[in-house]
Amino acid sequence: MKTLKGNAIVGQSGGPTAAINATLAGVIKGAQRSDNINKIYGMKNGIDGLLADTVICLDDYFTSDSAYEQLKRTPAAALGSCRRKLPVETDPKYDETFERIIEIFQKYDIRYFFYIGGNDSMDTVAKLSKYTKDHEYEVRVIGVPKTIDNDLLGTDHTPGFGSAAKYISVVMQEVLRDTAVYTVKAVTIVEIMGRDAGWLTASSALGRVCGLPAPDLVYLPERAFDMEEFFCDVSAALEKKPNIVVAVSEGLQFADGRFVGESTQGGAVDAFGHKYLAGTGKALELAVKDKLGTKVRSIELNLPQRCASHIASLRDIEESFAVGQAAVSAAEQGVSREMMVILRDNDERENYSSVYGHMDIDLIANRTKFVPKHYINERGNNVTDECLEYILPLIEGECYPEYKNGLPVFFEF
Amino acid sequence: MKTLKGNAIVGQSGGPTAAINATLAGVIKGAQRSDNINKIYGMKNGIDGLLADTVICLDDYFTSDSAYEQLKRTPAAALGSCRRKLPVETDPKYDETFERIIEIFQKYDIRYFFYIGGNDSMDTVAKLSKYTKDHEYEVRVIGVPKTIDNDLLGTDHTPGFGSAAKYISVVMQEVLRDTAVYTVKAVTIVEIMGRDAGWLTASSALGRVCGLPAPDLVYLPERAFDMEEFFCDVSAALEKKPNIVVAVSEGLQFADGRFVGESTQGGAVDAFGHKYLAGTGKALELAVKDKLGTKVRSIELNLPQRCASHIASLRDIEESFAVGQAAVSAAEQGVSREMMVILRDNDERENYSSVYGHMDIDLIANRTKFVPKHYINERGNNVTDECLEYILPLIEGECYPEYKNGLPVFFEF
Repeated sequence: MKTLKGNAIVGQSGGPTAAINATLAGVIKGAQRSDNINKIYGMKNGIDGLLADTVICLDDYFTSDSAYEQLKRTPAAALGSCRRKLPVETDPKYDETFERIIEIFQKYDIRYFFYIGGNDSMDTVAKLSKYTKDHEYEVRVIGVPKTIDNDLLGTDHTPGFGSAAKYISVVMQEVLRDTAVYTVKAVTIVEIMGRDAGWLTASSALGRVCGLPAPDLVYLPERAFDMEEFFCDVSAALEKKPNIVVAVSEGLQFADGRFVGESTQGGAVDAFGHKYLAGTGKALELAVKDKLGTKVRSIELNLPQRCASHIASLRDIEESFAVGQAAVSAAEQGVSREMMVILRDNDERENYSSVYGHMDIDLIANRTKFVPKHYINERGNNVTDECLEYILPLIEGECYPEYKNGLPVFFEF
Repeated sequence: MKTLKGNAIVGQSGGPTAAINATLAGVIKGAQRSDNINKIYGMKNGIDGLLADTVICLDDYFTSDSAYEQLKRTPAAALGSCRRKLPVETDPKYDETFERIIEIFQKYDIRYFFYIGGNDSMDTVAKLSKYTKDHEYEVRVIGVPKTIDNDLLGTDHTPGFGSAAKYISVVMQEVLRDTAVYTVKAVTIVEIMGRDAGWLTASSALGRVCGLPAPDLVYLPERAFDMEEFFCDVSAALEKKPNIVVAVSEGLQFADGRFVGESTQGGAVDAFGHKYLAGTGKALELAVKDKLGTKVRSIELNLPQRCASHIASLRDIEESFAVGQAAVSAAEQGVSREMMVILRDNDERENYSSVYGHMDIDLIANRTKFVPKHYINERGNNVTDECLEYILPLIEGECYPEYKNGLPVFFEF
């Protein structure tokens, strides 16, 4: 292993999560402890900020442990985010863009580049690795994953998933109590994030393996949705108890590929002539009302699923921090063009433990880890205990922000 | 004051809150401490359960302090709820219904009746007081208010409001961070509960008096909504910064009385021919997209506003508990046909304190406490600091449930 000395830079990209700042804190901590890294810089709004030279020195902000702790408990992306994809070789802006990046790298003597984000961010890592290698600029480039969707290959789970699953499963416990107070027959449909994979929707059922209430029906996008079977399921559930709760993924699709949220609305338009995309929950609410005549409502859990730092998973926050630190160690040891991964060491709920590794980005990028078949029941209207036992350790422990005047105090650059 | 000895019964009615079980715990604690009350019973599903004789002895469940603490931290209505209004004198079922109630009262020797609920529950208290007095059955009947809407007269604020305001203001802090990560111009509209009164929507702006971010625009139902002024406000805000957040009450109405959520949808119908009521946030989202062409989305905070026990206001939970205990003391001292109220002792944020009183129900029932004019700015697009200083002490402190396996453990009868 060749020792590489110089400065490091870190950026955040893609949609916010409750844990992406914990990973940022981990990278900063790792860099500050390193003998090889002198200064740690941050790019504002990801690669956009690198190109615009809106670069700040992070060492100035992190002189005490309390700063790390506050950053770990802050939602969204403290450095700001972007959605830019770097150009491909055939793009006329290719040379210009990468030359600019090298210019900035030289200006700050950047030898370590850490990028925290989802699939698009891994694309940035891959392109940057290739260009710098081809042009003999020595820099180690590492991706650190984050996504609430848990749909990346190669890693047991993704940083950010545990906190989103925690919020969803906790709120589901509350919603189940709320809907149970009346004796009138009623259906409550809860729409949960997850366009392609049903991991977050599955987590709404965690109560079941803990002797707590759980939704009566759970539909994931991995199975084609059948409206007639759905009506049968709902009717059967209503025979057993007056109040039923149904969890559905936003990404539910019929066998022919149409989205449930889209198709049921048919040609509905609003006063301005907009085609009306109501969402899966709303579409199913209207369908149940029409077919069964039951009292029914739908709830979208919405943005708090990805930014509810007020009830994050302590395990997720600690792992997200640790994987940031591990990224720095890996880079120091010569790793580059890789994405950090989390590997589960022990399957048992009580003895859960994990270790951090890294993997070739090309094996991971642009693929989706779906909920496997054996995690869904035969009827396709619920998840198996095995699925829930996989998720449960990831929501362990509660991480709360500090409060002042009754409001959370978050980190600010 | 005449001493009255016998048993007590308590029930819950109307929509759930995060604090209604704290009041139940207070009534039970008060009754157990009382020298005049022998046993404390609970009616399941409010007055429905009384008529059906689904009555349980609560003393059996509360033999330790930990049971109270768990009940205080449990959302929704642990005894179940109902929406039944008792019949008026001209109703053919009048005699039958009230005779049945007296029969149950006699069966359990009920001399104290506590009813925790909203306006309809106070109606039950009034009718029951009158009937028992006219028919010389000696019982003291007390209403204890609960509503997240804070729209009852006579009380400085309502039990349950502080916790709903806490959830809304905390989530707003998170949403403000989430929306700020990108540099693209975008409008986020957050729809908040409150059909008639804007107290909850106002609470979304609490960050402003704490040196924290706050929504750029806030619209309450107390002011007629003007779409053209709204477009001007949004455009002006977008001139100053790229990401703006707008908080709106679900109950916003135009000057002619039409609801914003209803009218903007015009004649839109879905595939089944249902008239489409999208809600205020969605309607304004479509309007902004159409008029300004900006990137825009809407978020409904939904059910967690009333049941998020995972981040309740400690002050609200403690006051809700104390007002339940105070109801028992008042009844012991001869009070009947009254609703408990909370009076603020000290206006200053740091020195907030409150006392408990009671008030003639007829002065309170079927009236609404609106956000007063001087709490709304001249333009009608935000609230004043005075309004926020009134709300701020009510969200003070954090009350969390206990967790096991990563999930909250709530009280169950």
